[in-house]
Amino acid sequence: MNTPSTPQLLVFDVFGTVVDWHGSIAREVRALRPKVDAEAFALAWRAGYQPAMQRVRSGELGWTLIDDLHRLILDQVLQQFGLTDLSEEQTRHLNKVWHRLDPWPDVVAGLARLKKRHTICTLSNGNIGLLTNMAKRAGLPWDCILSAEVFHAYKPDPMVYLGAAKVFELPPAAVMMVAAHQDDLAAARTCGLQTAYIERPAEFGIKQRKDVSPDPANTRHARDFLDLAAQLGC
Amino acid sequence: MNTPSTPQLLVFDVFGTVVDWHGSIAREVRALRPKVDAEAFALAWRAGYQPAMQRVRSGELGWTLIDDLHRLILDQVLQQFGLTDLSEEQTRHLNKVWHRLDPWPDVVAGLARLKKRHTICTLSNGNIGLLTNMAKRAGLPWDCILSAEVFHAYKPDPMVYLGAAKVFELPPAAVMMVAAHQDDLAAARTCGLQTAYIERPAEFGIKQRKDVSPDPANTRHARDFLDLAAQLGC
Repeated sequence: MNTPSTPQLLVFDVFGTVVDWHGSIAREVRALRPKVDAEAFALAWRAGYQPAMQRVRSGELGWTLIDDLHRLILDQVLQQFGLTDLSEEQTRHLNKVWHRLDPWPDVVAGLARLKKRHTICTLSNGNIGLLTNMAKRAGLPWDCILSAEVFHAYKPDPMVYLGAAKVFELPPAAVMMVAAHQDDLAAARTCGLQTAYIERPAEFGIKQRKDVSPDPANTRHARDFLDLAAQLGC
Repeated sequence: MNTPSTPQLLVFDVFGTVVDWHGSIAREVRALRPKVDAEAFALAWRAGYQPAMQRVRSGELGWTLIDDLHRLILDQVLQQFGLTDLSEEQTRHLNKVWHRLDPWPDVVAGLARLKKRHTICTLSNGNIGLLTNMAKRAGLPWDCILSAEVFHAYKPDPMVYLGAAKVFELPPAAVMMVAAHQDDLAAARTCGLQTAYIERPAEFGIKQRKDVSPDPANTRHARDFLDLAAQLGC
């Protein structure tokens, strides 16, 4: 790995990197309907995510917020799992579970350390309201909520990565994308950003282990946010 | 005044309401060139603000960030005050003084109290980078940085006020605009937002007192953010 200059701005992927969507969704679904396979439900919901965004990227759908894409997917997943008796209010509440995702255990302390020497922002496909509600509930101390919603483009569109650098008038090399997904980091790297991979081996649950092996193309490879803070001298 | 339901979201004007642009700019100009009338310089710079935004609103200029509008005005004000010997680097640094404005003394404590029971966001014509840098330097604990930059429209365009409500999926009446300027509040009220006027009698310096008398059309009239927190039961 190369050892470039310290980034001024750290931008974070959120779903999977900052928060445990799988565990949080499974817990709420289990509480709602104990007999449903809550882990499979969470996986099915998330599996609809990239295809739904692709409908926006391709122009099939106009600009649509993640809250609304989540709802389109949820309506199918509820059918698939036989949960057709939820009221509209229950369904809306469940759809907002993405606003109530819990952070991984290292996140709040790690962000507090990283924030001392860096500007820390979300750079998520999640919408601004979702990310703000999540941060307020979980105590995530972002300096700024940046979202695909600001740029009207979804990652991995270069407009999102380059847009973040532009917002702060920084060259892309002064920005580090932090994510638990190699494809997100690869797209950021193509735009000239530094990249930090975070291992989240339980992102898809403990039954389905994830490949978290290093890619030498990344600037950093960290176990978690505390490890990243240590590597960046925070 | 009517006594409506407690707002869920508080959105704040920034220049003059949260931070003392006049005092902060005068101090930097005085340090740079002791013989210049620093207070008049600050007033002249700010006086160019609405006309510059009007060029964007009217379509004469395409979408332009406040940092860039500030620079257009600054170049004229530097001429006007005979400061034609600044280097490009000094001029750029001075232009960024808007990122380094100091908050009024009640602001940090007031926002901390308001944040406990409300979501607190900027709703400023300032650009996202400016507002984030300012918040980081001054310790302003925003839940979210909302800016004209998100909506590509400058206040008092209704898109800004209604856009803030939409981001959080709230009816306008669940949002309160907080500002030290009656015209900003009047525009917000037209969109259905609640409004809180904050007295900032020294906004234009202590030599030029400002009319801070109440307008009964506002939902609240507060001396400062601590007073607003008390009125909202925080």
